[in-house]
Amino acid sequence: MEYKAINFDEKLDLINEYWSPRVVAELNDYQFKLVRLKGEFVWHKHNDTDEAFIVLEGNLRIDFRDGSIDIGPGEMHVVPKGLEHRPFAEQEVKALLVEPQGVVNTGD
Amino acid sequence: MEYKAINFDEKLDLINEYWSPRVVAELNDYQFKLVRLKGEFVWHKHNDTDEAFIVLEGNLRIDFRDGSIDIGPGEMHVVPKGLEHRPFAEQEVKALLVEPQGVVNTGD
Repeated sequence: MEYKAINFDEKLDLINEYWSPRVVAELNDYQFKLVRLKGEFVWHKHNDTDEAFIVLEGNLRIDFRDGSIDIGPGEMHVVPKGLEHRPFAEQEVKALLVEPQGVVNTGD
Repeated sequence: MEYKAINFDEKLDLINEYWSPRVVAELNDYQFKLVRLKGEFVWHKHNDTDEAFIVLEGNLRIDFRDGSIDIGPGEMHVVPKGLEHRPFAEQEVKALLVEPQGVVNTGD
């Protein structure tokens, strides 16, 4: 049988809008999503799940009500469930998200 | 509050043996594990879970009974539950694994 790995750059090249995650793989009932980010997103939270951000390219800042985190290429952070956060990318960021099926990116 | 991202290279530098995944983050009841791979692992399978391999550095081959897959930097593959597989790295590979808590890397 022919097996082919999922190539992040190839998949990212097919995405032509920001803040619009695309599912590229599934692991049990979890999903891997690639996303291109630029500018400021809305404040939101996910009451039922943690959310993982893995940065592939660029520098992502995530604001919290009591501080912020910078995530660069080769870095990741898990935002715990229920915590309000706002992603911000001054320049374009390419990232891989991991979260359960059915999560909406604007939260609850 | 001070927030700091998980830096893969920093964590990988602390690992001094091959085939010995270290948990670096948790997402609900799932774990992210960094691992350094070199040489050939044993044939095994996980009857209860899929397993994600995200390659950060080097080239990983995973053999299946009916073929094989090559996974390079910036690529990933999810091995489905129950499928026998054998990872092989001719040169050192640095990878990020995602799987539920409690999975043993030699399988069932």
